[in-house]
Amino acid sequence: MSYGFVTAIDFLGTFAFAISGATAGVRRHLDLFGVLVLAFAAATAGGITRDALLGATPPVALVDWRYFAISMLAGLIGFFRHDAIERFRNPLQISDAVGLGLFAVIGAGKALDYGLGPVGAVMLGILTGVGGGIVRDVLSMQIPIVLQRELYAVAALVGALIVVAGHALALPAAPTAVVGAVACIVLRFMALRRGWQLPVARARH
Amino acid sequence: MSYGFVTAIDFLGTFAFAISGATAGVRRHLDLFGVLVLAFAAATAGGITRDALLGATPPVALVDWRYFAISMLAGLIGFFRHDAIERFRNPLQISDAVGLGLFAVIGAGKALDYGLGPVGAVMLGILTGVGGGIVRDVLSMQIPIVLQRELYAVAALVGALIVVAGHALALPAAPTAVVGAVACIVLRFMALRRGWQLPVARARH
Amino acid sequence: MSYGFVTAIDFLGTFAFAISGATAGVRRHLDLFGVLVLAFAAATAGGITRDALLGATPPVALVDWRYFAISMLAGLIGFFRHDAIERFRNPLQISDAVGLGLFAVIGAGKALDYGLGPVGAVMLGILTGVGGGIVRDVLSMQIPIVLQRELYAVAALVGALIVVAGHALALPAAPTAVVGAVACIVLRFMALRRGWQLPVARARH
Repeated sequence: MSYGFVTAIDFLGTFAFAISGATAGVRRHLDLFGVLVLAFAAATAGGITRDALLGATPPVALVDWRYFAISMLAGLIGFFRHDAIERFRNPLQISDAVGLGLFAVIGAGKALDYGLGPVGAVMLGILTGVGGGIVRDVLSMQIPIVLQRELYAVAALVGALIVVAGHALALPAAPTAVVGAVACIVLRFMALRRGWQLPVARARH
Repeated sequence: MSYGFVTAIDFLGTFAFAISGATAGVRRHLDLFGVLVLAFAAATAGGITRDALLGATPPVALVDWRYFAISMLAGLIGFFRHDAIERFRNPLQISDAVGLGLFAVIGAGKALDYGLGPVGAVMLGILTGVGGGIVRDVLSMQIPIVLQRELYAVAALVGALIVVAGHALALPAAPTAVVGAVACIVLRFMALRRGWQLPVARARH
Repeated sequence: MSYGFVTAIDFLGTFAFAISGATAGVRRHLDLFGVLVLAFAAATAGGITRDALLGATPPVALVDWRYFAISMLAGLIGFFRHDAIERFRNPLQISDAVGLGLFAVIGAGKALDYGLGPVGAVMLGILTGVGGGIVRDVLSMQIPIVLQRELYAVAALVGALIVVAGHALALPAAPTAVVGAVACIVLRFMALRRGWQLPVARARH
């Protein structure tokens, strides 16, 4: 994938996750700075974990100041325009789903660039996609969305799989990434709307 | 330690922790994929953290697809055979203890291979042993077992110490690792059965 | 900054955070080893994260046994002298604030040494400062202090900013670091005493 294309996708995902973090922060009655911290953490934790595990240190989110600037912009919007944002249906889940899809394909693509095999690339794609949401939810003392129903990690899996399959078939990278991201986001939306979910085991406890 | 021996121990620990993660997930009423995510997270978080801190990136759990396959197998067993597993006394604690012992000796051994000193190797052994359980418990919103009583981290300490002491005395690595792992697992079992524990301070709050 | 000066500051921060971790552990009725684990985790998580993200592996806290020794000493004091410590007003918050200021300036300084730009260095300074407290609070199932009010991360920001500004102006590093740490600690103390805080958004949920 070309550098500019990857960066554009990464910035979009950063913005989406930062909005989700800021929204979670305002709902928890954090102050302005706590909201900005949560916006930044949600926006960058997935990519920072990805880069740390690939040995691509220091992580791009700490090297390129634009990740910080985008997170702060989204955090300020999330703080000062909270009412407008809450008028959307499930703004936290929508922005989270968009970030999930974008980061899953970016993570899988970067893992392939660093020489990981298909299984490792899919796993790192999922980890990049779900990492920001996990940190956001753990910091605000919620059970992470990833562990709940409605095909959350499955959607990230589908997005990452499409990227890895496209790579194996030598398809052009950018359109494949767009297809993967859209598939992930649509699948997650449909699961939320229609209540699609996987089976649950009956626990004895 | 020979590569094959280390890998065999590592796979066993991966299976044990994955069972503990899957059991925790079913108890929390997660869906199939959430259970698989928790199985994989519990099984690989300790080793991934170990490799990231040693600079051994990308972590072996993302490079070698067998870690993924073993986690999934254990996760599926944990999901579809939950009732059979719960017939054991404390299946979560048993599988957790086995993983703890195996990962503590693997972590300490790998740290020595990477040139860490004895104190660092013991600490990294403990961290490798307890890391998977911490991630599993934090993700499912439980107080981590490591912070509770009954000699949990002490057992990991004993296992890692035996490996480091054996290395200092130039004893053969594989039998030393087995002794360390068995000592850790037995100590943890006895503490669970007999209620052995360390003193607790009285807090004023 | 000279090696000896940095190390002295780092040891002080390690001691302060370890006391905060031990105090949190005793309040949660952990046993002796759980208290020591929490002391070590609070004391080293910020620096370990910093080193992992800079690619400075293995982290200095695992290489240099004195970090371990200082954490254990502070943990034992926190365990066996808990009553004396609780006679201070807010001992957890005081020790946490001292560690925050010292680690924020160390983190920012080390990031500059590794070639990060000003924005990255400030972010890594904040991360180093708040990392130990986040791990301590998440492990003991509290909402992290960093997300609460009273200018917590703002104080770390100020400390890190002073170090980065001093570097940009070519001021001598050691006095700048002292000024940054003192500014951070004083700001955090004043915010705690006087209830200074940033605005909070009204959430609709």
